[in-house]
Amino acid sequence: MGVNLLELLRRYDKTGIYNVYLRWHELLSDTYRVVRESFSVPREINVHGKVIRYGDINKVVICGMGGSGIVGDLVYDMYQDVAEVPIVVIKDYHLPRFCDERTLVIAISYSGNTEETISAFVEGIERGCQVVSVSSGGVLEEFAKKLGTPHVAVPRGTQPRAALPCLVAATLAILEKFNVIGDTGGDVKECSAVLRDVIEENRPEVGGRALELANAIGDKVPFICGHTFYRGVAIRLKNEFNENSKVVAVASTLPEFDHNDIVGWELKPSNVVPVFIRDRDEDEVTRARVTCTEDVLRSLGLRIEEIWARGRSRLAKVLSLCLLGGLASVYLAVLRGLDPGEVVTISLLKRYMSEKLRVVESLRKRLCIE
Amino acid sequence: MGVNLLELLRRYDKTGIYNVYLRWHELLSDTYRVVRESFSVPREINVHGKVIRYGDINKVVICGMGGSGIVGDLVYDMYQDVAEVPIVVIKDYHLPRFCDERTLVIAISYSGNTEETISAFVEGIERGCQVVSVSSGGVLEEFAKKLGTPHVAVPRGTQPRAALPCLVAATLAILEKFNVIGDTGGDVKECSAVLRDVIEENRPEVGGRALELANAIGDKVPFICGHTFYRGVAIRLKNEFNENSKVVAVASTLPEFDHNDIVGWELKPSNVVPVFIRDRDEDEVTRARVTCTEDVLRSLGLRIEEIWARGRSRLAKVLSLCLLGGLASVYLAVLRGLDPGEVVTISLLKRYMSEKLRVVESLRKRLCIE
Repeated sequence: MGVNLLELLRRYDKTGIYNVYLRWHELLSDTYRVVRESFSVPREINVHGKVIRYGDINKVVICGMGGSGIVGDLVYDMYQDVAEVPIVVIKDYHLPRFCDERTLVIAISYSGNTEETISAFVEGIERGCQVVSVSSGGVLEEFAKKLGTPHVAVPRGTQPRAALPCLVAATLAILEKFNVIGDTGGDVKECSAVLRDVIEENRPEVGGRALELANAIGDKVPFICGHTFYRGVAIRLKNEFNENSKVVAVASTLPEFDHNDIVGWELKPSNVVPVFIRDRDEDEVTRARVTCTEDVLRSLGLRIEEIWARGRSRLAKVLSLCLLGGLASVYLAVLRGLDPGEVVTISLLKRYMSEKLRVVESLRKRLCIE
Repeated sequence: MGVNLLELLRRYDKTGIYNVYLRWHELLSDTYRVVRESFSVPREINVHGKVIRYGDINKVVICGMGGSGIVGDLVYDMYQDVAEVPIVVIKDYHLPRFCDERTLVIAISYSGNTEETISAFVEGIERGCQVVSVSSGGVLEEFAKKLGTPHVAVPRGTQPRAALPCLVAATLAILEKFNVIGDTGGDVKECSAVLRDVIEENRPEVGGRALELANAIGDKVPFICGHTFYRGVAIRLKNEFNENSKVVAVASTLPEFDHNDIVGWELKPSNVVPVFIRDRDEDEVTRARVTCTEDVLRSLGLRIEEIWARGRSRLAKVLSLCLLGGLASVYLAVLRGLDPGEVVTISLLKRYMSEKLRVVESLRKRLCIE
């Protein structure tokens, strides 16, 4: 191998973000169990004299940004062909017009202080939506407590992106209680075992596929492409390479890739690395499309990286890929001598926005929360 | 200027795709007028003995790929805060589970031969959705005629991406007839005038902003970022640079960009060009976010390209940017000595897939169409 990854992690991973990935299997199953036991859908609540009745929804809107927002994408991918109601993902301050009293709005912000998500949460309350919030504290929890809206607390103390299994588990448990999806207890159990395997096979002592992928990317632009089911995973991996490794990255999706992106590869760009997400259970059409696309790229002289989903359940497939990508992005960071936990510009922008416009304060006033 | 763009267009634009962009204002207003006059929502239709009743919808699903699929994104951006029903965009073979007899499914394929879109159309019929198709002929038109489902014909004879105004105009006219949106006649008129201005200001004799943008990009990766309202425009411009200019490109969206992508810029990558989509009517929060983000990138030493929406209506803003980006991508192609009309790998892949799996033939059988 030549590199001592353990030593590099010790030197550069100042916040110890790597260690959180090692606990994903526990974070997933523990959070799922706790939320299943503790969360129940209220019959109705009363917000400033207005009654919001819960149950009987016909639309789901999942709001969040970044490491919290990706939960909506992953849930959409896993359950849009199971759920009998539309699942819509919103990554912005505002809700679409259609949100009404039969809309379940799940507002997810790991920190609880994301101004876009708090804004969407407040709009949900004002429109009489059936709002549920998820956070590890912060303003979102405070607002929920003061207004009496149902809130799910997840364990505190890490970077939002590393908390993914907590947020996914909480969201699954909520969706089950609203009968949007069936019981995922078995999937959570299987997924937890698969995540443990992924950790073992990619430990710093062995490196594994995660290290290979990190080496293949280097300081190039990783271009991650999955078929439609893995749209969210591709976005997640892009985000991980952005935040942990500090590289520009691209997320793309097949079959749409074949209608435009592929032409960008005809002249064999040298600074971009294609990474395809694969699945042993791809149906015949998907397999043909992925392999044809890869063949065309190879015929242009390009080298393709593949990463394969693990496990049987959709949950295991999706989270195993997220974990592999997460580890690869952490390894890439320390190989480049960078701290994977540090996200300087994000913090800077959050402070800028907060000081400039005081959005949260004005929402506080709008809801008459002291 | 130094380059003779007219001469380059004459030499490299073999299919004359550039000339189609010059007619966008006419394509938009003519198609809108014709579809408004000729299309009416049927009360009910009978497909193989099953009655599909039209009207009273509570969900809209817009299906299409590439140059046809982008219509769904643009319509979503323009009308999600106006429409009282969810608008969902599907770029794949399959419809989400929620599609039922109260779902309007608009299947758009300029050629009429896109297998993903034909598949989604067939699923729509089988599920009893209120299906409407849009094409310039092909299998989609044939299926619609044989089954008796409402079909909108748009003018033939160009590349799907260059036909954007026809497809947008047809979709707007359909959505009006289903009362999803109000009358857009005034917007179409204004937009048409704005498009004419954009053409004038960016003629090859003057070059204009389109040529400046093409020069700034060169053979680098254009990274196009708009705030949420311009998510579809960013994707469209990415697609145009892919297809016309043969470069890898990225589409991104604010505020989500600030939660991950921005970190990828911290080390000032030299092969990527940031292009921000701007709008003189941005609200206060959006303006603060875009300018803060640009300031942070500039403080890292990066040079930012801006492109500004034109006109008053959303339609004018969106299509003026699409036209400017389209012209820039054509200019970039010919500056690089490439034919903007040629998309070798897309054609190759379509043929591969069609020969390998014969998806359309099997759909034909499924619907008993001889």
